[in-house]
Amino acid sequence: MPEISLRIEKVRSNMPRLESFAILIGYNTNIYYTTGRYFRGYVYIPGEGEPLWFVIKPQIFEREHNIHFIRKPEEIPGILCELNYLKPNLIALEENELSYSEIIRLRNIFKDSEIADGSGIMKRTRMTKTEWEISEMKEDGMHQTKVYGKVKDCYRPGMSDLELQIEIERKLRLEGSLGVSRVAGNFMEINMGSVISGDNADNPAPYEFTMGGAGVDPSLPVGSDNSVILEGKTVMIDMNGAFNGYQTDMTRVWAIGQVDSLAQKAHDCSIRILRHLEKFSLPGIHVKSMYEEALKIVDEEGLREYFMGHRSQVGFIGHGVGIELNELPVVMAKSRDILQENMTLALEPKFVIPKVGAVGVENTYVVTAEGLENITSFPEEIQYF
Amino acid sequence: MPEISLRIEKVRSNMPRLESFAILIGYNTNIYYTTGRYFRGYVYIPGEGEPLWFVIKPQIFEREHNIHFIRKPEEIPGILCELNYLKPNLIALEENELSYSEIIRLRNIFKDSEIADGSGIMKRTRMTKTEWEISEMKEDGMHQTKVYGKVKDCYRPGMSDLELQIEIERKLRLEGSLGVSRVAGNFMEINMGSVISGDNADNPAPYEFTMGGAGVDPSLPVGSDNSVILEGKTVMIDMNGAFNGYQTDMTRVWAIGQVDSLAQKAHDCSIRILRHLEKFSLPGIHVKSMYEEALKIVDEEGLREYFMGHRSQVGFIGHGVGIELNELPVVMAKSRDILQENMTLALEPKFVIPKVGAVGVENTYVVTAEGLENITSFPEEIQYF
Repeated sequence: MPEISLRIEKVRSNMPRLESFAILIGYNTNIYYTTGRYFRGYVYIPGEGEPLWFVIKPQIFEREHNIHFIRKPEEIPGILCELNYLKPNLIALEENELSYSEIIRLRNIFKDSEIADGSGIMKRTRMTKTEWEISEMKEDGMHQTKVYGKVKDCYRPGMSDLELQIEIERKLRLEGSLGVSRVAGNFMEINMGSVISGDNADNPAPYEFTMGGAGVDPSLPVGSDNSVILEGKTVMIDMNGAFNGYQTDMTRVWAIGQVDSLAQKAHDCSIRILRHLEKFSLPGIHVKSMYEEALKIVDEEGLREYFMGHRSQVGFIGHGVGIELNELPVVMAKSRDILQENMTLALEPKFVIPKVGAVGVENTYVVTAEGLENITSFPEEIQYF
Repeated sequence: MPEISLRIEKVRSNMPRLESFAILIGYNTNIYYTTGRYFRGYVYIPGEGEPLWFVIKPQIFEREHNIHFIRKPEEIPGILCELNYLKPNLIALEENELSYSEIIRLRNIFKDSEIADGSGIMKRTRMTKTEWEISEMKEDGMHQTKVYGKVKDCYRPGMSDLELQIEIERKLRLEGSLGVSRVAGNFMEINMGSVISGDNADNPAPYEFTMGGAGVDPSLPVGSDNSVILEGKTVMIDMNGAFNGYQTDMTRVWAIGQVDSLAQKAHDCSIRILRHLEKFSLPGIHVKSMYEEALKIVDEEGLREYFMGHRSQVGFIGHGVGIELNELPVVMAKSRDILQENMTLALEPKFVIPKVGAVGVENTYVVTAEGLENITSFPEEIQYF
């Protein structure tokens, strides 16, 4: 089955099994998911029959598909009627992603239909990946790994975290990175990732990233703060892995000179957690049990006070990743998800060690029948400049 | 008056004059505008009395302000009550920026209040700038101009548009660019700007940018398409001017060898339009008349078919700019806005010439009593590599 048809069937398998059910998609990421490209407009997927593309922009478009050029969504019901599409009794809209004004407008257009939540349908659909999506992500992982191999070349003594980040950004872009990090949710902002050195790791950010950093401007308080990289401090590098519509998420740690034994111990603990979870995380387990297993190891090693932050700690150690950096499931105590084959997960057990900085490893994994397959394979030990 | 208090008064001047009116702000850009920094949470501005900050994240925060740490917005009414704040009869929420789910949640929290639209209040407030905001933007303009002065150094023969863009991105970042382009509206995506060369200028994009470009991936169909820059073609450079919470928008054109006479004529026409509008655009005129004046000049020169695109044309020649790249007013035929002192406008009369590429100039201006003051002062003639 062609990739797009496969995805449409996946969307349908997450929809109520009603002939008169439809979903109308208007959110960028979901348009890309259901069409393989991005346009401004809507994708209409009925319970049965061909999906339709309603394109507002661009009005020039090469494709033989079921495309209808519109100026505004009010034209949609008339076109559905002309095409003899069944009037939906229940229509799902992306209530978490589209603005209040837009949903109100769409509700008015479909005022004879009941409204269902489309956000959950699309999130659950995208939670597991197709073979094609996984191959895109493997390609991302290879490119990202290749660039991490050039980090050492980017470093010059006396450099600030920000200066190092800029050189890594350039290498990523030359390797094919699109230069954007797509994140779900309106309030998350970041450029191409995060390079955090020394004490800056203990500055909490307003965003739902595991690590913070003060940033260089109060309008974007996250990541590098332009402080010079010092001996004995760590530099945590968590930079963009988006080389196609998908992305991988990988973190590694660099340092100058030796880091202290507590930091080394915590870094080793992060690797121990990952090795354990790679075998433990079989399809069918509760995602929350992965979080619990990680905490057990952290407690055995007596490192709880540094785990997932120090002055401010976050309550998850991983998350789905795909088109967006933060997809389902979230690996946290409250998760109610069951681990499934072909989920793709970033696991990032990290520690913040006062006076040293952040340590730990993040890999992106594919969930397979045998456990987790790592697709971000750069060496995990602390690297030295 | 301190800057933040000044802005709060500006917000209030755009609110209905009712003691029991309040606005609750949750959108990133508006939180930054009303507090001078970004946190996750809400800003509550009553018709009278001190604004309150409800901070969800980070819960560590150095500031003596009226800060209340909350876990969820449901805690807000109780805190207002404890502080003896008047219960709002009418509360404004950002219906164009916040998601449907979030507005529904907030409406439930304030279920005894009537709901008004906060998006318009904030857009109108931010449409004119304070002296401090203008000085931030002037600083942006100086940094951006400085980097445009280095574009020639970035060029090497045989380079693609994308390779050139990557080197400019690096220079911008080293000059202090934050590396993000904040745009209003959920559907606009871009990294640090756009470098479009030759025929790629005629590829329409799904976004509301004046120029398109095919991009290098169907998930982000905008900007450079990695084609080699050829003699006789233009390279239009419209790259990021965000060096603090504000930004300037500037476009210039480069080329190798001479461009043909039609392209040169169109470029000169763009400069002529700008010179005319700089004097014509006095506070009190209709913004739409600026658009009409531009069209008149374009028609005089017989260049209508190339104006603001060729295969696909856009219907505006400029827009407000500030924290976001696309603010009010929009300089278009349908505008109902009146030009006001201290608006900041990017004007970008551009042309797409088949087989050559895009030409034209974009400047960011401050509206003054004497006309437009250009704050992006790089030379306007076509530059040659």
